[in-house]
Amino acid sequence: MLSDTLDQVFTKIDQLSQHFITDRLAKAVGIQSVSSDLTTEGRTKVDQEAAGHTAVLKLPDVILANHPATPDLKKRTVLIYGHYDVQPEGDGWTHPAWELTEVNGKLYGRGSTDDKGPVLAWLSALEAYQKAEVDVPVNLRLCFEGMEESGLVRFSEFAQEHKDIFTKFDAACISDNYWLTTRKPCLTYGLRDINYFTITIAQKPLPGHEPVPLHSGIYRGTVHEPMTELVIMLSKLADSNGNILIPGINGLVDDVTPDEIAQYEDIDFDMDEFRSTIGSEAAIYATAKDTLMHRWRYPSITIHGINGADPSPNQTTAIYPKVTGKFSIRTVPTMEGKAVMALVVHYLEQEFKKLGSTNTCEVKQFGESAPYWVANTEDSDFAAGRAATNRVYNTKPDLTREGGSIGVTLDIQNALGHDKSIMLLPVGRSDDGAHGPDEKLDRDNHIKERKLLGAYWWYFANA
Amino acid sequence: MLSDTLDQVFTKIDQLSQHFITDRLAKAVGIQSVSSDLTTEGRTKVDQEAAGHTAVLKLPDVILANHPATPDLKKRTVLIYGHYDVQPEGDGWTHPAWELTEVNGKLYGRGSTDDKGPVLAWLSALEAYQKAEVDVPVNLRLCFEGMEESGLVRFSEFAQEHKDIFTKFDAACISDNYWLTTRKPCLTYGLRDINYFTITIAQKPLPGHEPVPLHSGIYRGTVHEPMTELVIMLSKLADSNGNILIPGINGLVDDVTPDEIAQYEDIDFDMDEFRSTIGSEAAIYATAKDTLMHRWRYPSITIHGINGADPSPNQTTAIYPKVTGKFSIRTVPTMEGKAVMALVVHYLEQEFKKLGSTNTCEVKQFGESAPYWVANTEDSDFAAGRAATNRVYNTKPDLTREGGSIGVTLDIQNALGHDKSIMLLPVGRSDDGAHGPDEKLDRDNHIKERKLLGAYWWYFANA
Repeated sequence: MLSDTLDQVFTKIDQLSQHFITDRLAKAVGIQSVSSDLTTEGRTKVDQEAAGHTAVLKLPDVILANHPATPDLKKRTVLIYGHYDVQPEGDGWTHPAWELTEVNGKLYGRGSTDDKGPVLAWLSALEAYQKAEVDVPVNLRLCFEGMEESGLVRFSEFAQEHKDIFTKFDAACISDNYWLTTRKPCLTYGLRDINYFTITIAQKPLPGHEPVPLHSGIYRGTVHEPMTELVIMLSKLADSNGNILIPGINGLVDDVTPDEIAQYEDIDFDMDEFRSTIGSEAAIYATAKDTLMHRWRYPSITIHGINGADPSPNQTTAIYPKVTGKFSIRTVPTMEGKAVMALVVHYLEQEFKKLGSTNTCEVKQFGESAPYWVANTEDSDFAAGRAATNRVYNTKPDLTREGGSIGVTLDIQNALGHDKSIMLLPVGRSDDGAHGPDEKLDRDNHIKERKLLGAYWWYFANA
Repeated sequence: MLSDTLDQVFTKIDQLSQHFITDRLAKAVGIQSVSSDLTTEGRTKVDQEAAGHTAVLKLPDVILANHPATPDLKKRTVLIYGHYDVQPEGDGWTHPAWELTEVNGKLYGRGSTDDKGPVLAWLSALEAYQKAEVDVPVNLRLCFEGMEESGLVRFSEFAQEHKDIFTKFDAACISDNYWLTTRKPCLTYGLRDINYFTITIAQKPLPGHEPVPLHSGIYRGTVHEPMTELVIMLSKLADSNGNILIPGINGLVDDVTPDEIAQYEDIDFDMDEFRSTIGSEAAIYATAKDTLMHRWRYPSITIHGINGADPSPNQTTAIYPKVTGKFSIRTVPTMEGKAVMALVVHYLEQEFKKLGSTNTCEVKQFGESAPYWVANTEDSDFAAGRAATNRVYNTKPDLTREGGSIGVTLDIQNALGHDKSIMLLPVGRSDDGAHGPDEKLDRDNHIKERKLLGAYWWYFANA
């Protein structure tokens, strides 16, 4: 019964597939809605094109649309997020950036996969339901914004200002990431976040003095050199395999469960493909499981650079009086920002004391720390995602995380409240090249993901 | 007897002192012989002004003058080196840079102490001998060059090309450094040199790939990060007190002798003055002896910077595929460049192996390594310097070294041969500010050093 009705939607999607490409995606790609230089005109066009029932709150940043216009109280309600702004064209295109071009089943054009393709996939699914005359089984609130790529206007401000809007949903779904591979659909349930730090070693000025770079011929061997001490301090952060050496940090990390290990063993991830992506032999782990666990569910530390010393390739000889190392820790459940900060500061202060230096050492947090994000993959949102994937692809989706952060996820989670579920449901593949030249979406994904999104509503309604 | 004749020269110097300032130094300071933009006209003027018996070999670089024109074979022969080019004016002058101005016994002007003042001091001593009608007791070969400050034309090339010129001397004397303090004359007998290294950690490219900066959100925790390994490697070079941790390096250093320690204990060096000069509390040692020994007679290591990572003060998050650390070792007797290089490379290669990384580590020497320089302070050159100092200042000179290198010393030593003596005989004080604004020479030094140089010839002749 269920299947039959959903099949009508699927059949309509197949029938409309060229229409979706020609009249929808091709037109959207043709609009140069580059995030950093969006014009009012461009924005308005996208608004009109993208949404039927538009209730513009604050043009052009966020478009909100309800379907039906008045929610049906008997149905569950889903918030859908996407963005219509894109990256600039950039260099290196072999196809036109602003004209959708299909070659060998790949639809090339800026925004095809990030994120006009997914935005239109939601709208196309809705169109298919309507044209198939099948009742949409959930109340939809579509939320499409236009400043995601530039980050100039933070969506979080909007979400916090309009918290009332975000309280009325049973779940949210975001299509703004990618499959882990080129072969298998996935549902994404976790993100790492970043805690960024600086450590500054400086010579302690005498009253009325400002220490300046010293001539190494005259002074070295006789003064505590900040750069020598900075590399000592930075060397205490991690070993060559990326293991964090800060006591207590690893104790904040949730234990791995047997279920989780089993999950990782199922994931389709090819190590040769990984090595080819990084372009070097630098992979630490031999297996997909270890690599993915260290990408997603363990914290990591990276040293990004040193400010205040000489970065040139030249033979210079000064002793610099103040140098700052920059490093960051990617955090995972349940490492809270404050606890991480406290451990980092305490450890580095203790280690610096051991040096017995007359210099000063200051450790500071750089910017805000936002928390990691992780969803409960057993809830009805993910159950619907799994069922939909199984229906469309006849396979179990990989359950993935991302190694980095996607700010909007936390913005929406915070607005929704932490008892509501969010699922990341990617439409494109790992090789779509979102921000680069020849960004593409596969025609196969273009069609199947429309079915998947439509099926997701169906299974969520009937959970 | 000796004293009486020398006294005639001293009396003449006193009589001529205003002439030396007005007609010699003031005119020389007025010539803007900035090393980097010396004009032919400017050079020619200096040439004519500076030397009586000029035999121009390769205008304008090096002026050679003999006195007498034909050496007297019964006299010993001394080579005198100085340079007539100066640093650019730069910012911050409170007195005119190109007009000699006397205030409170200080003669301000570019070149007053570096090195026109000393060049003219030699010529003035000669003038005083002549006007006092006292026979100059040595054959003089004056060698004044015009490219010292720019380093564009290396004096060493000249010295090597004209080795025949440099074989005819019993000793050489260079006036191009400064007293250790503002109070006490010194003779300088040693220089440290520099061995400069780079250490590069890089991800090993797969065939046909060029590793690029990786997005830390996606890749960190899963790849060997060159920056993490570079700080580990650099941290193994020295401890916070500047002690070199490279095995074998300290074994190359000559043992300290009891005589040497006694020498250091005599030296007039004020630690408060030192702290004030560095402008901070970064001094490692509490005593002058320890500070000076680590400046002069022990090697030291400095890390100058890292190339290839992000030197900005911004919050960036990339993993860089190739980073290079720059460091140098100041060498002292009897650390030979090749032995130092071999120890550094072997140690770092062994330490890198311990990391078990898939990355590569390459240690290279950067530029040429020139050796340290040290003179025998018991020879007749230094004996004459001591006697002259005692005669003019009624004190024993401090025997000093410099922590850095003065290239021309080695150039001349190599041309002369290592059996000939070179002494560095500074004319100015530690606070003369050679390359900065308000460069000055004290009037007292201006007069007494003329006597000292004249006396040095006298005692060298009569050793």
